[in-house]
Amino acid sequence: MKNITSDPSHIARCAQLAMILEVSATPKPGNIDRDHNYTDTRFEHFLASAVGVYPILEKAARSKSGVGALIHEAVAESGKWQKGGNTHFGAFLLLIPLVMAAGKCENKTCLKAQAQKVATETTVEDAIEFYRAFSEAKVKVKPADDLDLGNDTSIDKIEARGLTLYNLMEISRNYDMIAEEWTNGFKRTFECAASIQDKIKKHGINDAIVLTFMELLSSNKDTFIQTKFDSNKAQEVSLRAKEILQKGDFDEIRDEIHSFDEELLNEGVNPGSTADIIIAGLFVSLFEGMRF
Amino acid sequence: MKNITSDPSHIARCAQLAMILEVSATPKPGNIDRDHNYTDTRFEHFLASAVGVYPILEKAARSKSGVGALIHEAVAESGKWQKGGNTHFGAFLLLIPLVMAAGKCENKTCLKAQAQKVATETTVEDAIEFYRAFSEAKVKVKPADDLDLGNDTSIDKIEARGLTLYNLMEISRNYDMIAEEWTNGFKRTFECAASIQDKIKKHGINDAIVLTFMELLSSNKDTFIQTKFDSNKAQEVSLRAKEILQKGDFDEIRDEIHSFDEELLNEGVNPGSTADIIIAGLFVSLFEGMRF
Repeated sequence: MKNITSDPSHIARCAQLAMILEVSATPKPGNIDRDHNYTDTRFEHFLASAVGVYPILEKAARSKSGVGALIHEAVAESGKWQKGGNTHFGAFLLLIPLVMAAGKCENKTCLKAQAQKVATETTVEDAIEFYRAFSEAKVKVKPADDLDLGNDTSIDKIEARGLTLYNLMEISRNYDMIAEEWTNGFKRTFECAASIQDKIKKHGINDAIVLTFMELLSSNKDTFIQTKFDSNKAQEVSLRAKEILQKGDFDEIRDEIHSFDEELLNEGVNPGSTADIIIAGLFVSLFEGMRF
Repeated sequence: MKNITSDPSHIARCAQLAMILEVSATPKPGNIDRDHNYTDTRFEHFLASAVGVYPILEKAARSKSGVGALIHEAVAESGKWQKGGNTHFGAFLLLIPLVMAAGKCENKTCLKAQAQKVATETTVEDAIEFYRAFSEAKVKVKPADDLDLGNDTSIDKIEARGLTLYNLMEISRNYDMIAEEWTNGFKRTFECAASIQDKIKKHGINDAIVLTFMELLSSNKDTFIQTKFDSNKAQEVSLRAKEILQKGDFDEIRDEIHSFDEELLNEGVNPGSTADIIIAGLFVSLFEGMRF
């Protein structure tokens, strides 16, 4: 536990590095990593997005409110730096409140409490800005309740019903991992941070990320897979991850993780929400002073 | 030619992304890339260094003088973010004057002229700070003339002889690619920038970097190889690069570049100075608005 500081630039760099380390870690079954691209979205698009968003992260670390507008600004800035489409929408949903919380904290206990405070204190305006960001990022996510995401009618409904961003997350929490993080005090994010810090000495940074990714995937149905395919597919992928992990130590299962990765990539099955939580966990670890 | 701006944050992010894209590009014969690590220095150390140095880059973009101190600060900040030792010393030697120049410019012609101005207007204090940075970074570089790099005696000699940082570069220019850049108006840097921008449409960002790296290596003996081995070895490596490039288009020579890479890595031959100039070229390209 060292190097903890509420310096906004330090916090913004921890968030940049979290995004860059996550996308670099390989093999990360089904997702883009340093060795795997999709047709239109490539590894380098994620690097450019993570670098480009710096000023919004620094601004978030100085901000006491406006989480929705900051998410919106982050999506817009990311898009200016690369032509690969949506790269970090889900990651920004977690990073922005965590970065805002970090700007007020110098220790881990404080970070958890402040992040929860940022989430619960959101406004209707935050919900509207989130919808605007969503609409621009063109992400596939299951709409919250009966609200069609990304059009003006939904914004009218949000205003009419006086829903805050936290309320929207409450509506989605049962089927959306990110919404669940928002409403349960970022539980899995902090678990991932602990897991990465626990594994880094033995496994090194890349393998600590891959192993934590596999563990998270094995114990949670990925929202992105569930939305793109269905709940059964997400369940099946989690079970496969679990079976592989049970077979032994990393060196014994490395080849199986590679095969699993190739299979998912061939099917277009990408556990994107799991990756977003890994980014959040890496941010917490780096903010807490993890170096390698 | 778009997006050119003298906003210090934009300039600093262009420099961060230049370092990250360069180290990611693969296969880059002999050097660390996304698929190759050395024993103590790894891909992730370069990523962390590039992210961590942001505030010094932003400060440089706002600075009119003090290039030596800024190089010193960049080396120190890079070291705080990773434990892999020297990663970007040579890159900072080129990036800091270019970033300072970019802070005063909104077009390419201006950038070249201003960079030359930053170089020629250096002071004795800049030379001393450069020596201090060098000593801390623990780089293998041939000492300039009869000055032993990195100890107090040399600093005494610099003061006694009234040598500026530009003077030191003049002393080394005949055998040091980076010093040559400092004294010839960053000629190869701008050539690399033009080459990368020329190739990106056909080849994509990764291959545009690899091809430009091969071309630069084929036409210049790498200083780092020359210092670690000797001039003959550096010459031999450049000739091999040239022979490979003459065999055809990228798709035809990709396998040969891979084999060349494996050979150099096995021998511990890393063309580090060539990589530094590629970073500088990438910075110029991104500053000029290159996106992908």
